[in-house]
Amino acid sequence: MDISSLIQKNDRKIIFIILDGIGGLPVNGKTELEAANKPNLDALARVSACGMHIPVAYGITPGSGPGHFGVFGYDPLKYEIGRGVLEALGLGIELQKTDVALRCNYATLKDDIIVDRRAGRIPTEKNIELTAKLSEQIKEIDDVKIILKPGKEHRFCLVMRFPKNITEKQAMVTDTDPQKEGKPPAQPIPLNEESREVSEIAKKFIERAREILKNEEKANYVLLRGFSALPHIPSFEEKYRLKACSIAVYPMYRGITRLLGMETLSVEGDIKEEVETLKKVYKDYDFVFVHIKKIDSFGEDGNFEGKVKKIEEFDNYLPEIVSLNPDTLVITGDHSTPSLLKAHSWHPVPLLINSPYVLGGLVNGFTERECFKGELGIIPATAIMPLVLANTLRLRKFGA
Amino acid sequence: MDISSLIQKNDRKIIFIILDGIGGLPVNGKTELEAANKPNLDALARVSACGMHIPVAYGITPGSGPGHFGVFGYDPLKYEIGRGVLEALGLGIELQKTDVALRCNYATLKDDIIVDRRAGRIPTEKNIELTAKLSEQIKEIDDVKIILKPGKEHRFCLVMRFPKNITEKQAMVTDTDPQKEGKPPAQPIPLNEESREVSEIAKKFIERAREILKNEEKANYVLLRGFSALPHIPSFEEKYRLKACSIAVYPMYRGITRLLGMETLSVEGDIKEEVETLKKVYKDYDFVFVHIKKIDSFGEDGNFEGKVKKIEEFDNYLPEIVSLNPDTLVITGDHSTPSLLKAHSWHPVPLLINSPYVLGGLVNGFTERECFKGELGIIPATAIMPLVLANTLRLRKFGA
Repeated sequence: MDISSLIQKNDRKIIFIILDGIGGLPVNGKTELEAANKPNLDALARVSACGMHIPVAYGITPGSGPGHFGVFGYDPLKYEIGRGVLEALGLGIELQKTDVALRCNYATLKDDIIVDRRAGRIPTEKNIELTAKLSEQIKEIDDVKIILKPGKEHRFCLVMRFPKNITEKQAMVTDTDPQKEGKPPAQPIPLNEESREVSEIAKKFIERAREILKNEEKANYVLLRGFSALPHIPSFEEKYRLKACSIAVYPMYRGITRLLGMETLSVEGDIKEEVETLKKVYKDYDFVFVHIKKIDSFGEDGNFEGKVKKIEEFDNYLPEIVSLNPDTLVITGDHSTPSLLKAHSWHPVPLLINSPYVLGGLVNGFTERECFKGELGIIPATAIMPLVLANTLRLRKFGA
Repeated sequence: MDISSLIQKNDRKIIFIILDGIGGLPVNGKTELEAANKPNLDALARVSACGMHIPVAYGITPGSGPGHFGVFGYDPLKYEIGRGVLEALGLGIELQKTDVALRCNYATLKDDIIVDRRAGRIPTEKNIELTAKLSEQIKEIDDVKIILKPGKEHRFCLVMRFPKNITEKQAMVTDTDPQKEGKPPAQPIPLNEESREVSEIAKKFIERAREILKNEEKANYVLLRGFSALPHIPSFEEKYRLKACSIAVYPMYRGITRLLGMETLSVEGDIKEEVETLKKVYKDYDFVFVHIKKIDSFGEDGNFEGKVKKIEEFDNYLPEIVSLNPDTLVITGDHSTPSLLKAHSWHPVPLLINSPYVLGGLVNGFTERECFKGELGIIPATAIMPLVLANTLRLRKFGA
């Protein structure tokens, strides 16, 4: 339901912690959360409302974008972020409403045929060198600023910055990647009348890049994919009347919260530095989001022990967070990343909401199997924010 | 959500077992599943993801059609099978896209008034004799082939086989059953311009049958109901990219899976013969559906002990099924059939999904009360297939 008409302001504070990829699966009988020695998290879970949330839908494995959208209460099926936008956010580009973002590949063209879509996966250093060269020589096309940023291996990001705002529709242009080697590159085709301008800039960029790269042995061509503009999303503050701030180390997550209009702080370091930042800024906001990344990274690497250790490290900092005495404290993940699968997964994610207004006493610790027994049950991710607002007494009664 | 864009193929295999009508209610404190001695099912449940599924909606008792549609991931509220089609499938008629199917009653007409809508429930033998006579004398009407098959007592099935494909709209004709005795039979009225042809054939059939049956004491007239054509349903293979096969003893279930485009094997016998067939064909398919009927039959008869024994019999064969080592094994029902009710019921249905990617350890056996504690929670039947595909690693990540 639409809760906007029920929202009321007060001075109660929320700390909302995402342990990225926290959910896991058993290896030798125990999940990462079950294997971790985490007395503080377990003690907190015992007096909290616990449950499991489903990020997108049954059986669906979410990417980071949909995973975060869900827990922030934005239906991930309704608000999709374009691939180019996500790539740009991941590389730390501060996108504006005037931008079209694309993810690009260096590729090898021979006799007008793409013979390698990834230019032999050139080393990242070579990519950095080539992208600097392109940046140097293509600063503008017509009145559109060209911003380039190298990624890993053959990948880079292109942002077209127009002198006017760009709608999602204006960015609807087809990929030039032929998807298979042995085919000529495709043309960037506008999918409607309004996206013609973007496609023309793309064509000119491809031509100029080709000329600049013509003597390269491998990376002599560029393929353009995922044309997209910033989606129109109501800001977190508009939606919930919360003055919100985000603390994250990785650019991708800063990008996502910037999309939602949160004050987005850059933090160098890891959990320690994030908690220090939290302590500094806590009193200035209604809602502070803290994103802990490395738990997911170890899961993705299949490093069970590493993930366990990272959970234990977080547990050491939990008392400092709790001592800030937030009115509502939320700890959950954006999705599961079982070390067993070395990847994001579809499994429900443990969720803990602590406030003075919970039952508590239903679970014995913060693990998958315990959280299934909790008072929140198994809920869609989009139910979390209404519950958090309710626990913070920020939702009025519905009806008389 | 629409998962079609996320589906990927691999060589992992699924065995999907429906224990028809498996859910029950307590008699002397125990349900049929709780009373049954079934060590294999219980052991499997302990290491599986368990839960309960709701076939159609809260409080809704499904027929066999909607029950199976739901677990196969076809929204039973969207895909409805006409009564005539279901009757024909149940009698083992292999319906084609050119067919209109109807379920019919023999009835007693006196002075143009229906005095008995069921012709005094004539014995099935009499029905067989009369239906053979009608078949003999009405082979065709205009260019439409007439196919008749006797059911039980006064019921029989009529299939009009046209020389062209028939849409659902073309079959929309009203029933001729007046619903109450003491009224004249209704006319078959076309509900739109396109269904006029079908209604004309129906009128001619009624006239000719009346002429042939005129000297019968009781069954001297026919009532036509449930005019329907095969619904347009995306095939299981289109929908999931799974090469699928169905093993079932009863014609109705073969008919349902044939509707979904599964390779449909006819098996004579019971669980033993079905498991033998499974072992033979297992390696040739991505997905093998096994339908175990008799558990439901005992439930419908109110035979608690019979249902318990049938569950125990299935349990004896479970190790043979498990030893095939499917990547994902699903055991559930299409609906509940408590012996206490002697009928299908609205109750949620126990569900077990086994794969290498489950938590397990949350339930103590495969019973209604245990499955409520499982990691799948209480889910709509249509969530089963996305979960099964996810466990079989056949669903890609959603979003980046």
